[in-house]
Amino acid sequence: MATLSEKAAENLALLREKKPLIHNITNYVVMNYTANALLAMGASPVMAHAQNEVEDMVSFAGALVLNIGTLTDDWIASMVKAGIKASALGTPIILDPVGSGATPLRTNAAKQIIDQTKISVIRGNASEILSLRHDDSKTKGVDSVHSVDEAADTAKILAEELQTALAITGPVDLITDGQQVVRVSNGHPLMGYVTGTGCTATAAIGAFLAVDSDPVSATATALAFFGLAGEVAGQTAAAPGSFMIQMLDALYTLTPEALREGCKIEGE
Amino acid sequence: MATLSEKAAENLALLREKKPLIHNITNYVVMNYTANALLAMGASPVMAHAQNEVEDMVSFAGALVLNIGTLTDDWIASMVKAGIKASALGTPIILDPVGSGATPLRTNAAKQIIDQTKISVIRGNASEILSLRHDDSKTKGVDSVHSVDEAADTAKILAEELQTALAITGPVDLITDGQQVVRVSNGHPLMGYVTGTGCTATAAIGAFLAVDSDPVSATATALAFFGLAGEVAGQTAAAPGSFMIQMLDALYTLTPEALREGCKIEGE
Amino acid sequence: MATLSEKAAENLALLREKKPLIHNITNYVVMNYTANALLAMGASPVMAHAQNEVEDMVSFAGALVLNIGTLTDDWIASMVKAGIKASALGTPIILDPVGSGATPLRTNAAKQIIDQTKISVIRGNASEILSLRHDDSKTKGVDSVHSVDEAADTAKILAEELQTALAITGPVDLITDGQQVVRVSNGHPLMGYVTGTGCTATAAIGAFLAVDSDPVSATATALAFFGLAGEVAGQTAAAPGSFMIQMLDALYTLTPEALREGCKIEGE
Repeated sequence: MATLSEKAAENLALLREKKPLIHNITNYVVMNYTANALLAMGASPVMAHAQNEVEDMVSFAGALVLNIGTLTDDWIASMVKAGIKASALGTPIILDPVGSGATPLRTNAAKQIIDQTKISVIRGNASEILSLRHDDSKTKGVDSVHSVDEAADTAKILAEELQTALAITGPVDLITDGQQVVRVSNGHPLMGYVTGTGCTATAAIGAFLAVDSDPVSATATALAFFGLAGEVAGQTAAAPGSFMIQMLDALYTLTPEALREGCKIEGE
Repeated sequence: MATLSEKAAENLALLREKKPLIHNITNYVVMNYTANALLAMGASPVMAHAQNEVEDMVSFAGALVLNIGTLTDDWIASMVKAGIKASALGTPIILDPVGSGATPLRTNAAKQIIDQTKISVIRGNASEILSLRHDDSKTKGVDSVHSVDEAADTAKILAEELQTALAITGPVDLITDGQQVVRVSNGHPLMGYVTGTGCTATAAIGAFLAVDSDPVSATATALAFFGLAGEVAGQTAAAPGSFMIQMLDALYTLTPEALREGCKIEGE
Repeated sequence: MATLSEKAAENLALLREKKPLIHNITNYVVMNYTANALLAMGASPVMAHAQNEVEDMVSFAGALVLNIGTLTDDWIASMVKAGIKASALGTPIILDPVGSGATPLRTNAAKQIIDQTKISVIRGNASEILSLRHDDSKTKGVDSVHSVDEAADTAKILAEELQTALAITGPVDLITDGQQVVRVSNGHPLMGYVTGTGCTATAAIGAFLAVDSDPVSATATALAFFGLAGEVAGQTAAAPGSFMIQMLDALYTLTPEALREGCKIEGE
């Protein structure tokens, strides 16, 4: 899909030119790596979670990243507060429902954030995304999805029901807003051996949302960029420690031209 | 000791086959490195500390890792709650009493966790471990331990009094459950220049406890594996930054066979 | 300036000999990197923030590092409590007012800490430092500073008003206690692409304050050392991931002699 390849290159160039502030309320495990990844790709990260600060901070931001790992009630309240402010300002919000479906705290927190704020994109794996269904959803659970086509149909319905774009990531990422369906197949197996690569992919989408107002193209191009950085790292690194460092390097060294050539994005 | 060398290889192979979920309630400084180390060696880490989530999370886990660095009262309460649940389920618990003996908060927290939960292993340095003695302990303080043999005798008594296995780590690690005494001499001096290597060794023991129900052999083989990864890293890295990355690589690349050949475990 | 070059070498040698405990109350993003940097350079880091522990912990410390990133009210209270204790003990305190001026929470927290404790050094960028002015300050805001000389004059007045040494870092760092003005020009552009290099520079100053009672020379020599480590890293690393690892290596491998030769410190 020539259009999205061009868009990927354009978004990356814009990101490095505008260096948007990305406000992250994210988990303790990945804060450092996420901040370094955002810096490397060209964005300006800030982490701030105090309930008496998040509204001030998000007012300066080009996008808000909400991530529910290492969650507590205080942090949920901060995420909702920041999200309501971002919604009012028209600032794009991306939600990473880490572990939704695994514990009631996480599932309920993710649903509360979705209900009370205007989310542009939700990124998660299939089980996390499917855990977000309302009780009266027309979709079924993970077990009932047996093929790539069924997954796409389910995701389209769910995106419409939740009124947001969805990015279901895996070996092939599926992105949909209920109408358009795009698939991204960049990536490398060692990404699964570095903690927070999913969370960091979410932050990368946040950075691209700050320069591209279309959630589907921002998400697809960000995931292609992030996955391609993994491919570049995997060309020389053979184990997770070296790999995570070379991924940061690749996020910095990848050019818009290399991204246009290397991105693997397929639209319907 | 042929038996424990074989057991080390077997445990590592099992770990990579079963990929047990390891629930960590640990300190902010080491969360990222611990999670990456657990992933690299083959386990599935999760960090979760909310009082209204830890019981749910630990129910899925193969082991619970409690670490009292960067402690507050809220976190102590979460550790106790998770520990009580793990004890009821028969899930192994390993405690890292970081800084016990240095401040009353830490000493009291460690003792409270020991009193209220069923701990399988406590790993610390000599002064941390000796700070855990009850007032009526038959052992004496650090200053009264003048030789390797006295250290072993003291550790055996203390393990019986605390009803847990102990791992006193240093240039040579001493592991005892009050009966058996095992020593592990794998390791590298640069491990002392990377923050959280002790904490991460504790998490590695947690991973091995999830596949080996004998606390002494799980602990000894985990420490041999972790120390050998340090030795491998030290073959090419000459300073702490490179070393910590190459240790992650070695945790991933070390094979069960290499561990069987390279582990330095001596039993009584 | 031969004197400060000699002093830099002397401080680094002393640091590695004495290995002072540096108590950090710092933000989640940089805790791991800060701890690793302090270990690599030869200090002994500890992170502890509980209100019922900080007074105990700071009593053992050679310096206290306060950093207001990822701030909440609870952490402000802990910083003030630790700072009051350190002030009473004569333990040097360094403050990093991360984001002061950006949100009221941060500006007010920084001012509260300055008012209630005896700070030896404040390190920040120009806008952070200028945000700390009292309402009746004789200095003007960032926009009114148009030259290097004006910056020095403003910094001198502000240092006198705040009764502390100031380190305004950038491509050239300016250090003043209101009387003496020193400039340090070590550093590398990739330092701006690694999260927390400013915060870690602050921690390095803390480590040097533990072995050098003169705030100006401790700060200037620490910044020269930290910047020179960046220069060494930049000789082989071309992107931020590799760079941040090689900086840790350089903090460990740089000798006092190499620091004496390589430091770029200019005094008035």
